[in-house]
Amino acid sequence: MSEGGRRRGRGGGGAARRAERTAVNVSCAPTIRRRIGTYDILDDEALQIIERNAETVLEEIGVNFVENPAALKLWKDAGADVQGERVHIPRGLARKLCASAPATITQHARNPERSVVIGGDSLVLAPVYGPPFVRDAEGGRRYATLADFQNFVRLGYMSEWLHHSGGTVCEPTDIPVNKRHLDMLLAHMTLTDKPFMGSVTEPGRAEDSVAMCRLLFGEAFVNENTVMTSLINVNSPLTFDATMMGALEVYARAGQACIVSPFIVGGAMSPVTVAGTLTQVLAEAMAGIAYAQLVRPGAPVIFGAFVASIDMNSGAPTFGTPEASKILYGAGQLARRLNLPFRSGGGLCGSKLPDAQAAYESANTLNAALLGGVNFMLHACGWLEGGLVASFEKFVLDADQLGALHSLARGVDVSEAGQAMDALHEVGPGGHFLGCAHTQAHFKQAFWRSHAFDYKPFETWSEDGGLDSQALAARRVRKLLGDYQQPALDPGVAESLADYVARRKAEMPDAFV
Amino acid sequence: MSEGGRRRGRGGGGAARRAERTAVNVSCAPTIRRRIGTYDILDDEALQIIERNAETVLEEIGVNFVENPAALKLWKDAGADVQGERVHIPRGLARKLCASAPATITQHARNPERSVVIGGDSLVLAPVYGPPFVRDAEGGRRYATLADFQNFVRLGYMSEWLHHSGGTVCEPTDIPVNKRHLDMLLAHMTLTDKPFMGSVTEPGRAEDSVAMCRLLFGEAFVNENTVMTSLINVNSPLTFDATMMGALEVYARAGQACIVSPFIVGGAMSPVTVAGTLTQVLAEAMAGIAYAQLVRPGAPVIFGAFVASIDMNSGAPTFGTPEASKILYGAGQLARRLNLPFRSGGGLCGSKLPDAQAAYESANTLNAALLGGVNFMLHACGWLEGGLVASFEKFVLDADQLGALHSLARGVDVSEAGQAMDALHEVGPGGHFLGCAHTQAHFKQAFWRSHAFDYKPFETWSEDGGLDSQALAARRVRKLLGDYQQPALDPGVAESLADYVARRKAEMPDAFV
Repeated sequence: MSEGGRRRGRGGGGAARRAERTAVNVSCAPTIRRRIGTYDILDDEALQIIERNAETVLEEIGVNFVENPAALKLWKDAGADVQGERVHIPRGLARKLCASAPATITQHARNPERSVVIGGDSLVLAPVYGPPFVRDAEGGRRYATLADFQNFVRLGYMSEWLHHSGGTVCEPTDIPVNKRHLDMLLAHMTLTDKPFMGSVTEPGRAEDSVAMCRLLFGEAFVNENTVMTSLINVNSPLTFDATMMGALEVYARAGQACIVSPFIVGGAMSPVTVAGTLTQVLAEAMAGIAYAQLVRPGAPVIFGAFVASIDMNSGAPTFGTPEASKILYGAGQLARRLNLPFRSGGGLCGSKLPDAQAAYESANTLNAALLGGVNFMLHACGWLEGGLVASFEKFVLDADQLGALHSLARGVDVSEAGQAMDALHEVGPGGHFLGCAHTQAHFKQAFWRSHAFDYKPFETWSEDGGLDSQALAARRVRKLLGDYQQPALDPGVAESLADYVARRKAEMPDAFV
Repeated sequence: MSEGGRRRGRGGGGAARRAERTAVNVSCAPTIRRRIGTYDILDDEALQIIERNAETVLEEIGVNFVENPAALKLWKDAGADVQGERVHIPRGLARKLCASAPATITQHARNPERSVVIGGDSLVLAPVYGPPFVRDAEGGRRYATLADFQNFVRLGYMSEWLHHSGGTVCEPTDIPVNKRHLDMLLAHMTLTDKPFMGSVTEPGRAEDSVAMCRLLFGEAFVNENTVMTSLINVNSPLTFDATMMGALEVYARAGQACIVSPFIVGGAMSPVTVAGTLTQVLAEAMAGIAYAQLVRPGAPVIFGAFVASIDMNSGAPTFGTPEASKILYGAGQLARRLNLPFRSGGGLCGSKLPDAQAAYESANTLNAALLGGVNFMLHACGWLEGGLVASFEKFVLDADQLGALHSLARGVDVSEAGQAMDALHEVGPGGHFLGCAHTQAHFKQAFWRSHAFDYKPFETWSEDGGLDSQALAARRVRKLLGDYQQPALDPGVAESLADYVARRKAEMPDAFV
């Protein structure tokens, strides 16, 4: 779906199209509140072993804070044993520091109805983050542009089950690398009214993110509230670089939320076992979160875990594997024992196409993330090819499956209406339930229904062209982008944001690396 | 994959092909023993409500045993209130009768290494059952033939993660309906050495199944052991017809296992709610299992639950939905409280093609089945289009995913090797784990790896033709069928089976309805 393609799609039209647009549903489901239990794969003994080992890692091996003397000083003052850039954290100190982080975070959206709660029994769904390429059925695989980025933000706005607009939904590679964040933030602030993420690729870009939020939300509001959740990856194993920590410092000081996320291809960047990888994840997450608390006690943080497996035949990262699920379940338990919000999961896959491989792998991860107690799910939709590609078709296919997570999370209704004894009495052996009073009263809300899949009988489906999921999804992408209408924004705010972006761009020479 | 296609595929060949065949791996994983907990979606209060309501259904509404005076007499003698064909089962009676059923069943295969255990912490995987159509990439969708059936049995034999050869993997529609069971049994007995299911479409066909097993295993062995697990569907709601019950009676008397399985499209054949449907499932399964115990106390039985949702827009059954998962989780809990083996799940989907829809839906069900504590998973691979179609490509895609279930079920190793503290110490911050001693010692068994998916980098994958999952799976089907070699069978046994089939066919005129 190129921008040109979208324009062509909108060129025709007239009354029918306008009528269709008027009927557009741009509702957005509220944050999922999980009324079902989590799936706990580790028993108490395993949890204690991993927690003890993580403390050993922090104390005996330590972590590196690279090119960051201020961080080393904070650690030393807190009681750590600092040797060069290596910080040895005494047993128990990191966990103690983590205790000042809030258990739940409210991230505000400019539309208050779309603010989200992260932590406890909540689950917030955000789209894919980071791909340099995009793919769609029409245009194939290509470098992502700002037009693609904007279309993904529009698609996210139109996706009922997606709570969050995300961050770098794809890399706008046609914009200089030192200016992209400005255009991306502007899109998140103007093309949608859902919450979003800030830039982390340089401390100055984090400052820009905070400054633009002050224009959007007002300075006083930003000083008192969390309006961004940003992704701070750890350089696994056990390394915290100055760029990411610089961004974290900006956000922590501004009271904005950071996801401290070990980013691990298991077997290469961590031990080749689940328990060993979980030990490293826990050590890294605790060290980063503790550091955020040193910067500003009470700074909102999220315990992140992004772990892929490695294919030992080819060295390729693999997704939706059983080992990845085990790590997700275990990391969720470890995060909950720290009383911290937990980030993991998503529609992760290694496939090059939005085909069966992509869907098996993604569904494996989506299911594990729901049951594993994830509170913030990045990459919930649109992820393809190990995160190298943002796929338009996969975005709408995944986003549709997110509806199933909402429904599953509601659990089982055992009210009188849920028990349905009147229906069983009315119908009896050999009867049909379709016409009974209970069914008539409840069928509209009874079953989740996909809006992306085909439920037609074979003959009708054949007559309609016998399209596969990818082709149906391409049609849905066109429909959603065609129906898109920009949410209203105060013109003064819009102008000040545009001015800020123009001014900052003018201040900097273009940089492409 | 037509039989002709397969022959053509094998026509070329020579030394290379023979060498390849010699290297064929026809290993079969043993029954999964789950070392992870089950996912329990219902709390004690919900379970007690549903159990109480199911007893109310059995007592106040009752169940119909149709055209089966002998069954009505057994129920009356057991203390039920029989009114015409309606059996009102006093509160507690069905549960009490179920208590004589064994908690686990060993189903023997003719190759003792491939015998399976059904119940407790076990999970046995069996292929799709029942489709009148088949589909493959080459030949499209068509009526199934005996040649298709035989190829599916061969594929099942070649599938490492599939424990069981199943039953009616597809309907051989080119064989008269009253003779099909003989050819199907012969295929399961001669083309594979995995365990299989018996015929249930008429009591006489169940008798044939037992008679052929006596030829295969020996009469004394069959009298003392379970060698078949057969599928007895309930005519939901609350109806037990004479054909299915007749087959159940044959098997129960012969000490052979039956799956008593409500087959429900929720909202049409049961109430439109999860709790209401679970109530009906429990009532139906208990009534059928209790009846098997009346026929022969101690008869091996499995608590079955096959539940689809209904799309209230079109009336189509839908699969892999959140409601179906909830029912699966809940039914597993109810079965475990009866201390009975549990059957549910599989790679269920509604899609017409082995595409993303098929895979999302199937993965949703496969994951729920593993965590829901299923002991016998029918339809684990090959199911397409709501069960109307057995797909060759989907068979190998699903069968590959079953490997992930094996791995997930093993849980997390927290032995010293699993903890990997030596690796963490050796590598330290910023290092790589690929070369460390711990990785070298453990990498071969560390990560599950798909044999059906593509893990190549984009460029290599593109140069190889840029194939999607379906095309890769078609290639895998050809490879597996090309590599297939029939397992050895005592020639005298093979002859007696062939003679039995020939004699029985000669005794009956062809029937096609």
